[in-house]
Amino acid sequence: MDVEMINPFINGALHVLKTMASTEAKAGKAYVKKDRVAKGDVSGVIGLTGEAKGTISVTFTGPCILDVVSRMFGERMEELNEEIGDAVGEISNMISGYARQKLEEGGKSLKAAIPTIIMGKDHRLSHMTNGAVIAIPFTTDSGKFTIEVCFEE
Amino acid sequence: MDVEMINPFINGALHVLKTMASTEAKAGKAYVKKDRVAKGDVSGVIGLTGEAKGTISVTFTGPCILDVVSRMFGERMEELNEEIGDAVGEISNMISGYARQKLEEGGKSLKAAIPTIIMGKDHRLSHMTNGAVIAIPFTTDSGKFTIEVCFEE
Repeated sequence: MDVEMINPFINGALHVLKTMASTEAKAGKAYVKKDRVAKGDVSGVIGLTGEAKGTISVTFTGPCILDVVSRMFGERMEELNEEIGDAVGEISNMISGYARQKLEEGGKSLKAAIPTIIMGKDHRLSHMTNGAVIAIPFTTDSGKFTIEVCFEE
Repeated sequence: MDVEMINPFINGALHVLKTMASTEAKAGKAYVKKDRVAKGDVSGVIGLTGEAKGTISVTFTGPCILDVVSRMFGERMEELNEEIGDAVGEISNMISGYARQKLEEGGKSLKAAIPTIIMGKDHRLSHMTNGAVIAIPFTTDSGKFTIEVCFEE
């Protein structure tokens, strides 16, 4: 695992949730994903190209994203609707943007495709790559989310 | 809708399903997607960058992809398992590759990120873009699938 490629995404998630949603998230230990266990209810996926080819995904459980978006909007969200999907796309974009800026400062330039948002109870994501898929579990007061980052070898 | 950007993906889908899975698909009329109706059970998503920034997704209903992969493998598949997910990633990659080659011949060079595969009954996909999302419904003898293509303005 190339920590220098992964840490900017972890820091991006912590930064974006704190500044956008006053949410203190804690990053758990990153691990190489081998299973395809259901990870959540709403995901944002962004393809990456450039000096490395890969993908970043951010997958929220329902309770977690409802709380995060409630804090972003300043009103209580209770349904996993289109607004929640848009917010997940925006959050994914900001995490990706933050990480790409840090990687660029370190000399690695990546381009991002546009975010795709997936909604559906207990959907599972997998990434078709010859490289490792690194999963980082996060916890917040209101639930869990997971970031997965992978780059081709 | 820029037909020249969309047709290579339609032709790619017809070509890939025919050559890889002996499946004759028929393309319905392409439309600008405005809803977020559940479209399927297994999807492949690939981010695109380069002269245009966008995404292609291929979303299959369960019965359709089970039949397609049964034809690819020459054995009856009955469960939406990891093998089906891998096949959808491969099919998405081949459609994207076919389309990118045709676009490149026409002077438009696109780079592809790695495919992400989503499995989950009745999941919904949306794409966060300021451009139009073009959906193309396909029918086969065994069911339906949908391709969505979008590029930033």
